[in-house]
Amino acid sequence: MSIDNVEKITELIMDVIREKNLVTSGASDTLDEDLNIPVGISNRHIHLSREDLEICFGKDYQLTPIKDLSQPGQFACKETMTICGPKGSIENVRVLGPVRKESQVEILASDNFKLGIKAPLRISGEIAGSSPITIVGSKGSKYLHQGAIVAARHIHMTEDDAKRFGVRNGQIVAIEVEGLRGGTYTNVVIRANDKSRLECHLDTEESNAMGLNSKSKIRIIK
Amino acid sequence: MSIDNVEKITELIMDVIREKNLVTSGASDTLDEDLNIPVGISNRHIHLSREDLEICFGKDYQLTPIKDLSQPGQFACKETMTICGPKGSIENVRVLGPVRKESQVEILASDNFKLGIKAPLRISGEIAGSSPITIVGSKGSKYLHQGAIVAARHIHMTEDDAKRFGVRNGQIVAIEVEGLRGGTYTNVVIRANDKSRLECHLDTEESNAMGLNSKSKIRIIK
Repeated sequence: MSIDNVEKITELIMDVIREKNLVTSGASDTLDEDLNIPVGISNRHIHLSREDLEICFGKDYQLTPIKDLSQPGQFACKETMTICGPKGSIENVRVLGPVRKESQVEILASDNFKLGIKAPLRISGEIAGSSPITIVGSKGSKYLHQGAIVAARHIHMTEDDAKRFGVRNGQIVAIEVEGLRGGTYTNVVIRANDKSRLECHLDTEESNAMGLNSKSKIRIIK
Repeated sequence: MSIDNVEKITELIMDVIREKNLVTSGASDTLDEDLNIPVGISNRHIHLSREDLEICFGKDYQLTPIKDLSQPGQFACKETMTICGPKGSIENVRVLGPVRKESQVEILASDNFKLGIKAPLRISGEIAGSSPITIVGSKGSKYLHQGAIVAARHIHMTEDDAKRFGVRNGQIVAIEVEGLRGGTYTNVVIRANDKSRLECHLDTEESNAMGLNSKSKIRIIK
């Protein structure tokens, strides 16, 4: 075994030690704090196009914001709707604003069974070929030929955050959750742009399964 | 650096390689198949004591089995009940048989919000100090002073299975789930005894969060 090999082996071991956080210094403990990411938990909800908003709530209808969401410009509305599939319906589904180019209904995986549909796992906005669903408002209803999805988990962050975490927009990472119901989720998409605020978006099933609440923090693992 | 050190380093690296499954031979591929564990998915459900069964369904009432469950001797019943907390109720909650020494209501983490209770995460049977809940049957109801829990995930297996997986009864392991919504869950309890059949028990939120269904398999990681 030559000295070259020993150096390579030592490098490999140091990589593993770093990767597994077997050694942490005071300095990295401070850094560690900065690498916690707050969690945003989504229940089922609806984004409406201007056209569908008017069909379901009336001509020139304006959404009524009741609560700002963490992502800049996004808000929860007073308005709720009923969503229907061939097998069942779910009432009081919150509309989120502002209006978008296309309507989109984000449901929980378990809602597929209640509604009798097969909404695919998708990143928000990627609705081509997604499931049909009916949305019902106070003044009308609309059969969406596509638009029902189960939202793929993702992490919003600024470009500066992305540098800090050593990731790039579109990268797929895993996240780690501590606690009695902890574990890791793979396939978490990084969405880095300067209109975002740092937050990991999970739905209520994903957060309950890991014992998370709105005060929880997660970490990226690569 | 002495030869002793090199040997130690080599051992460490081999440990890591084995642990991370970086090398698999044909033989271990065959073995791999044997290490898949089927998943059993539980929705909220109720186990009744003989006394509470009679209070809620009438004197000398007998449960009506409609479907055998995977664990030997366990069955789903025709009977359903309404469960109530201070903030809300949930109808059509399935009773599982046979009767047990103590009544126990296993709910989903999200049910805590609907019902307005704080059922703790517990291994089935460990109900001391768990949440109160009201159960309502066709002939009566009962306020359980304790008994509502969120079931801690666990893996049933025989003693022979335990040997094969290299685990022991009571051991805490992690499990790994493949797929788009995959990841790992930590704190999974091994329940090994010869009255069991090999199955990993998760609730619907845990299975939905990982994209699992009744045909899915998971693996133990230690």
